[in-house]
Amino acid sequence: MSETITLSLEEAKSLSLTVLQHHGYSQAHADAIMRSVLAAQRDECHSHGLYRLINCVEAARNGAVNTHAQPSIVDQAPGVLRIDAHQGCSLLSFEMGKPLLAEKARQSGLAALAINNCFHFSALWPEVEALSSEGLVAIAMTPTHAFVAPAGGVAPLLGTNPIAFSWPRPGGSPYTFDFATSVVARGEIELHRRAGKDIPDHWAMDAEANPTTDPVAALAGAMRTFGGYKGSALSTMIELLAGPLIGDVFGHETQAANAEQTGKPFHGELILALSPDAFLGEHAAQHLEHAEALFDRILGQGARLPSQRRFEARQNSLRNGVTLPKTLVDELKALVS
Amino acid sequence: MSETITLSLEEAKSLSLTVLQHHGYSQAHADAIMRSVLAAQRDECHSHGLYRLINCVEAARNGAVNTHAQPSIVDQAPGVLRIDAHQGCSLLSFEMGKPLLAEKARQSGLAALAINNCFHFSALWPEVEALSSEGLVAIAMTPTHAFVAPAGGVAPLLGTNPIAFSWPRPGGSPYTFDFATSVVARGEIELHRRAGKDIPDHWAMDAEANPTTDPVAALAGAMRTFGGYKGSALSTMIELLAGPLIGDVFGHETQAANAEQTGKPFHGELILALSPDAFLGEHAAQHLEHAEALFDRILGQGARLPSQRRFEARQNSLRNGVTLPKTLVDELKALVS
Repeated sequence: MSETITLSLEEAKSLSLTVLQHHGYSQAHADAIMRSVLAAQRDECHSHGLYRLINCVEAARNGAVNTHAQPSIVDQAPGVLRIDAHQGCSLLSFEMGKPLLAEKARQSGLAALAINNCFHFSALWPEVEALSSEGLVAIAMTPTHAFVAPAGGVAPLLGTNPIAFSWPRPGGSPYTFDFATSVVARGEIELHRRAGKDIPDHWAMDAEANPTTDPVAALAGAMRTFGGYKGSALSTMIELLAGPLIGDVFGHETQAANAEQTGKPFHGELILALSPDAFLGEHAAQHLEHAEALFDRILGQGARLPSQRRFEARQNSLRNGVTLPKTLVDELKALVS
Repeated sequence: MSETITLSLEEAKSLSLTVLQHHGYSQAHADAIMRSVLAAQRDECHSHGLYRLINCVEAARNGAVNTHAQPSIVDQAPGVLRIDAHQGCSLLSFEMGKPLLAEKARQSGLAALAINNCFHFSALWPEVEALSSEGLVAIAMTPTHAFVAPAGGVAPLLGTNPIAFSWPRPGGSPYTFDFATSVVARGEIELHRRAGKDIPDHWAMDAEANPTTDPVAALAGAMRTFGGYKGSALSTMIELLAGPLIGDVFGHETQAANAEQTGKPFHGELILALSPDAFLGEHAAQHLEHAEALFDRILGQGARLPSQRRFEARQNSLRNGVTLPKTLVDELKALVS
C-alpha cells in the first residue's frame, strides 16, 4: 500500500483554491474548478478529483486556458441559452448559466445550455446532479479530442465523448450515469501502460488497425466505442449535438494542450434540462414517485444502480474527509511553494 | 429461394389500406399506418414493413387497439405538446402532433412531443426522418414490453427500448440511427428459433439466469442490453423519459395484446425536436455544412454510416417497387377475402 493522507473537506477546498489562484486562475474560476474537483474527490472519483488540479496548472502554464476569461451569455431563444467561455474553463460558464437554464426549463418544459469555446477537463455528473438537485431531469454531453475509431473504421476520429444523465429522486440520491462512449476511459489504458499490464483485445486497435493487447500500441492507435456500431452511432450523435448544433467544433478539430502551445483544446458542451413540473403539472409528484418502482425492481433482482458506489463514498467522505495518495498531496503543495 | 412478388408502391399502398380498413381501422388511422409500413417496406426493413399489417389486424381482433381513436392534443407548455392516443395507434398521434412540435422547436429552440396511452408497433426512424426532412434534429424513444434484464440482473424488467436520431444533411439523406438497447431485436431470437439455430451466448440468459445458446430458453428467460452496464443505463433512461416524465407507464407494466384480451399493450413515446436555425440564427447553414466533415471522415476511413443500406434500398424501391414473399402477399390478400 502506498502512503495516504486524509484531509478534511475544508482542507481539500483550501488546498485546491490555493493551487489554482497561485497559478493565475481568477477567484471565480478557482471557485468553480474547486467545487468540481472537490465533488469528485468526495465521491472517490480520483481521476476527476484533486489530481486534475495538476492538469489545470499545466493548462495555465501552456497558455491552454484563459484563467481570467469572463463568460458572455446570450439569451438565444426561449429554450436556448448560449455562453461563450472565451477559452476559459467550462465550469464557470456552467455555474453562470445554470439559473437561467433552470428558469427556461421550468417555463418551456425543456431547455438547452450551449457552452462554446471552453477548456474542459471535468466529469459531467456534477453538472447534471446540480440540475437534478433542483428537481430537473438533465442530460449533458461533450466531445473530447479524437482518440476513438468509428465502428468499422481504422483510425482515431471520434472523441471518448461522454454522456451523463440525472433523474431527481424524491428524498434520495438521484439516478445518475456518466460514461464515455469509448469501451473504457482513455485513462484506463494509461493505467495499464504504467502498470505494464496487457489490455483486453477489444478495447483498441494499433496504428495498423489490428486488435492489440499492448497499451502502448493502443495509445498510438485508436480506441473502440462501447457496444459496437450502436456506441459508435451514439458517439457520433454527441459530436453533432455538442458540435455543429451549438456552432462549435468536432473532437477531431481539437488537440490537447501542450508545452509548445500549439494545442487547440477548446470545444463545446451541451446541457439539456427538462422539467417534470412543466411536463406534468400537478401530477408531477405522483409520476416521480411512480418512477421509484423501476429502481426498486432493478435493486430487487440484485443489480446495482449506476453511481451507487459513488453515493456510498460521498457519505463516507462527508463524515471522514477525503483520503489521497501522499505523493499527490506533496505534489500539490509543491505547486504553491 | 422462396417465391417472391414485386408490387408497385401504389399497389402496396392500396393493399395496405384495404387490409386496415377491412379490419376496422378508420381512414385516418389506416392512412397513418400505411405510410409507416410502406416507408419501411420501401427501405427493405421487412420486419416493420407490410408484414406488420398482420399484427395490426390481430391487435384489432383482440381489442388491443382502438381502431377509431381520436387523439386529443394538449398544448402543455411553450416547449411541450402532449397527445393522448386513447389506445389508438401511435402513428396518427405523431402525424397530428408534428406540425405544432416543429413550430415549437423553431420558436423555442427545442421542443418535446409526448404521446400517451398508445398502441405502438412501428420503427422510430420514419418519425425522426419526418422531422429531419424539415431541417430539424430529432430524437425519439419508447419503452417496449419487458424482455430485457438490467446489467447485473437476472430477470426481464426493461423493454428492448429503441432510440432513434436523425440529423438533417443539406442536399442528401439524413444521418439517422434507430436501434434497440437490447443486444439484438427480439425478432432476431425468434428467427433463430424458427430456423432451429443456436444464438450467441451473450444475447440472453435462460429462466435461471444462466447464459444460453438456445433461442427457446432465451425467449423464456431474459435478453441482455447492448454494451453491458452502459446500454443498461441508457435503456433505463429511455424508460424514465418516455415513462414517468410524460406521465406514462414503464415497459414492465405492459403486456403484449393476446387473444384472451388481457394484454395491456398501451404506453408512451417521447419525440424531441431541436432547431439548428433557432440555436444558430444566420450561422445555421454554415454549421450544418461543417457537419459534413464528420460524415466524410467516417466514410473516408472505410466505415459506413447507419441507415446507408436502407437509403440504397429506398432508391431501388422508388424505381422498381417492393418485393415481398409470395406467402406474405397471399396472407394479406386472404385477410380481405
